[in-house]
Amino acid sequence: MTDGSRTDRRNVLEITPNLFQKMDELCYPKSIAVIGASENFIKWGAFLTANLLKGGFEGAVYPIHPKAATVMALPAYTSLAECPGPVDLAFITIPRDKSKAALEDCAANGVKNVVVVTSGFSETGEEGAAYEKELVAIARRAGMRLLGPNTMGMISAHQKLFMTGSVCTPPAGGISMISQSGNLGAQVMLWAEEQGVGVNKFFGSGNEGELTATELLAYLGHDETTTAVLAYIEGIEDGQTFLRVANEVALRKPVVILKSGRTDDGARAAASHTGALSGSYDIWRGAMRQAGVVLVKAPMDLIDGAAGMENLPMPKGNRVCVITLGGGWGVVATDLCNEYGLDLPRLPDDITARLDKLLPPFWSRANPIDLVGQVDPNTYGKAIELACASDAYDAVITLGCIGSSSFAFDIAEVTNAIAPTVVDKSVLDRFAGIRDAFEATLRDDIAQMTERYGKPVINVSLDKRHRQVILPASNGKKIVAYNTPEKAVRVLAGMTLYSGWRAKQAKNGKTRS
Amino acid sequence: MTDGSRTDRRNVLEITPNLFQKMDELCYPKSIAVIGASENFIKWGAFLTANLLKGGFEGAVYPIHPKAATVMALPAYTSLAECPGPVDLAFITIPRDKSKAALEDCAANGVKNVVVVTSGFSETGEEGAAYEKELVAIARRAGMRLLGPNTMGMISAHQKLFMTGSVCTPPAGGISMISQSGNLGAQVMLWAEEQGVGVNKFFGSGNEGELTATELLAYLGHDETTTAVLAYIEGIEDGQTFLRVANEVALRKPVVILKSGRTDDGARAAASHTGALSGSYDIWRGAMRQAGVVLVKAPMDLIDGAAGMENLPMPKGNRVCVITLGGGWGVVATDLCNEYGLDLPRLPDDITARLDKLLPPFWSRANPIDLVGQVDPNTYGKAIELACASDAYDAVITLGCIGSSSFAFDIAEVTNAIAPTVVDKSVLDRFAGIRDAFEATLRDDIAQMTERYGKPVINVSLDKRHRQVILPASNGKKIVAYNTPEKAVRVLAGMTLYSGWRAKQAKNGKTRS
Repeated sequence: MTDGSRTDRRNVLEITPNLFQKMDELCYPKSIAVIGASENFIKWGAFLTANLLKGGFEGAVYPIHPKAATVMALPAYTSLAECPGPVDLAFITIPRDKSKAALEDCAANGVKNVVVVTSGFSETGEEGAAYEKELVAIARRAGMRLLGPNTMGMISAHQKLFMTGSVCTPPAGGISMISQSGNLGAQVMLWAEEQGVGVNKFFGSGNEGELTATELLAYLGHDETTTAVLAYIEGIEDGQTFLRVANEVALRKPVVILKSGRTDDGARAAASHTGALSGSYDIWRGAMRQAGVVLVKAPMDLIDGAAGMENLPMPKGNRVCVITLGGGWGVVATDLCNEYGLDLPRLPDDITARLDKLLPPFWSRANPIDLVGQVDPNTYGKAIELACASDAYDAVITLGCIGSSSFAFDIAEVTNAIAPTVVDKSVLDRFAGIRDAFEATLRDDIAQMTERYGKPVINVSLDKRHRQVILPASNGKKIVAYNTPEKAVRVLAGMTLYSGWRAKQAKNGKTRS
Repeated sequence: MTDGSRTDRRNVLEITPNLFQKMDELCYPKSIAVIGASENFIKWGAFLTANLLKGGFEGAVYPIHPKAATVMALPAYTSLAECPGPVDLAFITIPRDKSKAALEDCAANGVKNVVVVTSGFSETGEEGAAYEKELVAIARRAGMRLLGPNTMGMISAHQKLFMTGSVCTPPAGGISMISQSGNLGAQVMLWAEEQGVGVNKFFGSGNEGELTATELLAYLGHDETTTAVLAYIEGIEDGQTFLRVANEVALRKPVVILKSGRTDDGARAAASHTGALSGSYDIWRGAMRQAGVVLVKAPMDLIDGAAGMENLPMPKGNRVCVITLGGGWGVVATDLCNEYGLDLPRLPDDITARLDKLLPPFWSRANPIDLVGQVDPNTYGKAIELACASDAYDAVITLGCIGSSSFAFDIAEVTNAIAPTVVDKSVLDRFAGIRDAFEATLRDDIAQMTERYGKPVINVSLDKRHRQVILPASNGKKIVAYNTPEKAVRVLAGMTLYSGWRAKQAKNGKTRS
């Protein structure tokens, strides 16, 4: 679906009429009706209602139920007409054969947009496909945009709208996602929640009977509160439009795509799953890269990449300084850097001279900077600042610095268990205090250096207590700490690739405000 | 160091005289002296003593300290001669300049073997190297084997001997490891503990002044309690011997190596770290693969691979059946399989016919088998059994089945929080019971199928509650569940590569009992 008047618009991303306004309505409703709301736990009507309420949506919620007086302790209504106020957004999760009537009811009652969670449509065969067409026709006649059918749901985190099948309320932030697989998308959102990555919007695109992944991408490109877009894509009908949109979005913000159906067996599986025609991945890959898209192959890469892109400045080149507390880790990270296209230029003499004054005589005097077991957060901070301030480097990776203070505490804790006369509770508490102060200082230093020099500092924490990639620093700042060097390197490589592409486009005059 | 009489031996792995006997003494001591034991938390003498005691070593422990009457609540002794019994193994962690005298004391008092944790030897320059030579000479004259100097320590888990710098007591099992980086090795052991992977022995090889990585590898090849060997290698002086040993060991059990210094910058970093000359990785890679070694590039791959190799039968070929609870996951896993050299043969008609009776009419009727949201563990179990029993497949990957029952519980829990009148505490408890029974049944089914059909079933759990790769089943059995499909596929690909190599060797008459 394209719009002939497109070229007249200021924003070329508005590829279908009123896309931005309608999508804003969809994402920022003041009232939501749940058609099919339920207290029966094997039903989506229960999943969705419970999750919406748990998420803290502040607008009106109207459960629609044929009989019940209340659903999940909320007053329920037998129909939309009965609701005490207008309905901006309706979620439909009743059996397929009743969905048409429900949609007509939505149209009659001025509902602005609908999300159809119900399944049994084009994904099941011809009969379902015909039914889906009728649904779409009703929505279009009424000027409603329709997400789905057969969608896992959606999230609009700043609106506290968490309405997917699984219990998942990630923190509000800048990352938005489109997923052509509900389960996979929901899992990425669960990882975001688990790891503290800030989410803006999520759309399970379902069968894309009406709203397509391409339109959703265009909207997220336009949406200024979205800082980066993730997508899981199995197949796209109009590849040319998708490419053009992806390119426009990439000129504004990072687009990270996991494209499946890359291999023979994978393409067959995708056809079986969503009926997607995958086409040749070689061609797809080339075109996507040229369009500025960062391509990944594993689901976890999506959220790893998002964590870095949401919270760090982009590197201006591929020159990395590695700062490590253990020599082996430095070597491992260096290999991975080179294998992912990142260089480790030698240490400039002035940095060497300065570190000579900070470190024991047998320090590495090379990049990676091996801090040879130093346990002073100020030493770490100074080394990181030297690397950030230097013209020789575009990015810094630290290994084992974050979390290193827990080492001494762990020993104290063990000693308390085996010899409490040697380490009593008060000593243990003092150690915990030292550890926490140490870590807080280091996190603040890293956050400050990142901001002051506008360079990404990516950390690898080997502390098992850190479950989250995103760690807090003072004043609401955040730092990024992965649990393996391979993740840190992969993310930095992706960011470097993207920023290199952006710089090249800018050189050719291609910029977007 | 080689032994001319080697060819007379039954076991070609005994590459130096009495290697097996001396290493058994080192790994199974009845008494340990800690020379330099301390209660001062910034000292290794405290780390080692605390960890040894925490680990529950059942033999005698003699802290050696110049003045203290007790260390960590144990009676301390001013010298080895004072100890009330013989000393099988001594850990030396006193300043370098006193280590020679300590070693001579060990020799004079009949200590069988020593682990020298102290640093400041060849890793710091010529003076340290000369000192190291003297140390080694003392040990050799006395017939003591010496691990280190500058080692992170060692583990012999079945002996409850956990003596490394970090607090780490992984469960006793079959995996042994050699690490040319103390920090990296210690971290892999921490991961093993965290994820429930069973460890047998661990050696930080340190400067390899005396015992070399090659000898350690040869011993682990001989050691029947070791089921697979992991190694982190930066550089090997006598590459030919290492290759020959690796080949001999690989004929007996899997050898998984992370070789660093693969790239230009990495080789430079390795030279700076341990003085290792890395040589051309291309040549190294080719020779290692031919020798039957499984090569990995990231530290986490070591422990992921170990989890699979320790607990699962080896696949007899590369044909995989994927069973998934979500279509998207199936597609993603299929792509990764193909990209790692694994095939997904189509479903045989008899399996399709049987699944037709179990699954809704719109199931995938293809490999991956999409269970389309079924929530009956018996359905999962039956599908897994059909795949295991079929001649068409060598291995099974399940996606999202493990942990799937927590979905309903999570909704119940949220509802309990927002509407306790709908779900009260008793309903919630009942849901927890249903969930736990469901998961137990499924784990048991998977463990049984794996055993009955001798095929690996590798699971991907998307349940955030599962932190461990190894999950328990009844009767002491275990199953393997990774948290991403990419890990499952990578491990299966490594196992397939190894078992294919073994089969080829057997065909050429190369087998080892």
